[in-house]
Parts: sequence; C-alpha cells; structure tokens
Amino acid sequence: MRAVVTGLFITVEGGDGSGKTTQSQLLTDWLEQGGRTVLRTREPGGTPVGVLIREIVLHHRGEVSPRAEALLYAADRAQHIATAVRPALARGEVVIQDRYLDSSVAYQGAGRVLGADEIRELSLWAAEGLLPELTILLDLDEDVARGRLDADNKRFDRLEAEKSDFHRRVRAAFLGLAAAEPERFLVVDAALPVAEIAAVIRERVAALL
Amino acid sequence: MRAVVTGLFITVEGGDGSGKTTQSQLLTDWLEQGGRTVLRTREPGGTPVGVLIREIVLHHRGEVSPRAEALLYAADRAQHIATAVRPALARGEVVIQDRYLDSSVAYQGAGRVLGADEIRELSLWAAEGLLPELTILLDLDEDVARGRLDADNKRFDRLEAEKSDFHRRVRAAFLGLAAAEPERFLVVDAALPVAEIAAVIRERVAALL
Repeated sequence: MRAVVTGLFITVEGGDGSGKTTQSQLLTDWLEQGGRTVLRTREPGGTPVGVLIREIVLHHRGEVSPRAEALLYAADRAQHIATAVRPALARGEVVIQDRYLDSSVAYQGAGRVLGADEIRELSLWAAEGLLPELTILLDLDEDVARGRLDADNKRFDRLEAEKSDFHRRVRAAFLGLAAAEPERFLVVDAALPVAEIAAVIRERVAALL
Repeated sequence: MRAVVTGLFITVEGGDGSGKTTQSQLLTDWLEQGGRTVLRTREPGGTPVGVLIREIVLHHRGEVSPRAEALLYAADRAQHIATAVRPALARGEVVIQDRYLDSSVAYQGAGRVLGADEIRELSLWAAEGLLPELTILLDLDEDVARGRLDADNKRFDRLEAEKSDFHRRVRAAFLGLAAAEPERFLVVDAALPVAEIAAVIRERVAALL
C-alpha cells in the first residue's frame, strides 16, 4: 500500500496541425477506459485568469513587446500549474496538457528575439520547477502542417499567421529539445496513420502507469 | 554640443497615502515651467496592454497565485518600459513614474511569499536592466498613512485592503532598499508640509538636469 498517490503529468507538443488534439483525445479515452481520471488542459487559457491572459496575447491589436509576451505566457503557466495541474496530480490523476515548457522555448526562444535559456528559466520559475514525466512530440514537416491548416479553413491567429520559415525554426527547436532529453521525450512522426501514432503513445504511457 | 540627448528617468515610491500623486504633479509643473517635456506614467496600467493586466491583478475575483501575480506585474513592466518609457527617454524627456522596481520588491518580495532577490531579477529582466537616475521615496508612518486613506473614504482595492502589519513590512523594505542604494534614492519624510517636500525634491532634480 502506497501512502502517497501521485498522478502522471504528460505534455503534448508539436506545431499547429500536427494532431495534438486528436491524439490527446484518443489517449484520454484509453486511460479513462482503464479507470484513470484524466485532466485534459492547455496553455494559454487553462484557468479563468489564463483565459484573460490568452485574450491579451493572441488578440491585442497593438504591439506586445517580446518580453511582455513571454512574461504573460509565464504568468498563465504559473496560475495554471499552481491552481489546476498540481492539485490534479496530488489527487493521483493523469494530466494531459496541450503545450507546455517546450512550446515556450521553441516558439519564444528559438523563433524570436529572446534566448532559449532565459525562456526556459522563466518558465521553470513560473512552474516552481515542475517538469512532465513524458512529453509527446508530434513531429510534422512544415509544408504538410500548413496544408492541413489551410484545408481546415480556420481563422489564423497571430501565431498561426507567422511565416513558414518561422515554423521550420520551431520544428528544429522542438527536435533539438527532444534530442537533449531523450528519456522525457517520445518523438512520433505525425504523418503516420492516426491509429498507429495512438498505439505508439499508449505503449509508452502504459510503461509509466 | 552633445550628439545624443538622453532624458531623465525618475521614479516615485512610497505607500498609499504618502503623497506620490501630489509631489509628482508639483515636480511636473516645475519642470514644464522650465521648458522640459515630462511624461507622467505609472505601473500597473501605463499602456493599453497594462490596463488589461491591471484589471486581472487588482480585480480578478478568484485566487491569483503569487508567481502569476509577480509575472503579470513584470509583463506590464516589460510592455511599459519598451513602448512608453524608453521612447520618451530617447526623445530627451523627463519621465516621472509612479511606482517601479522598488515597489515590486517591497510589496511582492518583502511582504509576501516570494524572495526579494528573485522579484528584483524578474523585474530587471522585464525592463532590460533599466534603472532610474533618481528614486524619490516618500516615507510615511503606517498609522498616518492609513488615517489619510480613511479620510479620503476611497474604495479599497485588494492591495489596499491588506493588513496594517503588511504595510509596516513594506515600509521597512522600502527603507532597506534606499539604504542599499543611497546615490539613487532620495528619502523624504512624507509627514512634512507639501511645499517643503517639493522644495527638497526640486533641489535634487535640479542637480541632475
């Protein structure tokens, strides 16, 4: 009998159009069928405060300075980890989170004017050092990703509207992060069939439960 | 002939009810009569993005975690310094700012659960290291300060509603900061007559112009 039941923190990373939502849902269904309680969440916007922050970051019409943007994302993270993720983990739940630390580093650090190291440090300060047990990186070639988004005919928000070259740099940054922490990352080719990706993910998660 | 004209960055610190607004106005009037262009500004809320952030920090009804709050203040600072203060200084203006770095350290660091050093580091990162040439600390005994606010019959916001003991710790923190950087700080007894305080401030500012 274990005195302390702790949950499992899983993050799902990858560019827009890489299938994060689909795979998170399939993993959630499988875990719930196995009797686990799952919290699916995301940043930015996973808390009431985060929703307000998300509005500022994504839809403010004027200039948002690079450091202000990074700090707003970090504030959202701090609130989300403290008030949603840590309580769920303490209850023994599985938390599946769409985007976390690695997105901040890849998008803000590698893609923009700020250094990857300072963004990572800022995020870890915000989250009081919380790292996921598993990070699933859905890796997709940029041209394929753009094609999927165009097909959806979605309204592009500020980040999505950034140039193709930016997305290529983000992809390279994600792959670099995964290479640096191979125990934490599971990198999957997002161009594979959905069921095949889901099976690879289930196998890895099963080993952690 | 100087090739680069740079402005003068002055911050005004002190508890609520210490007379920051009155003294900032008197200093502004005097500077403008002397032909200087003055930007009077404040944090939080000195920019359109800052107004939105201020709403979250001061008036959100639920819990805001300590780190989220500190990061929101830092985001406001980053935006304000990058888009309002630095441009004004580059134009050679005098910037008089109600609250800055020292308020963050005194209120967040000394008064709450976070360390003064990490709050200072966060603020300096947000502002890309910008420190004022002069910080005017209007130092007022806590009981006098509370009496003035009560007399105004103002609606108390979240910070103002904190306990008297908290305000005493903040005052001690401000005085400690001033003692550590005597060249940057001008500490004035805020219980002195308004005209007397204004004269002391003018004398110090005149030496910097």
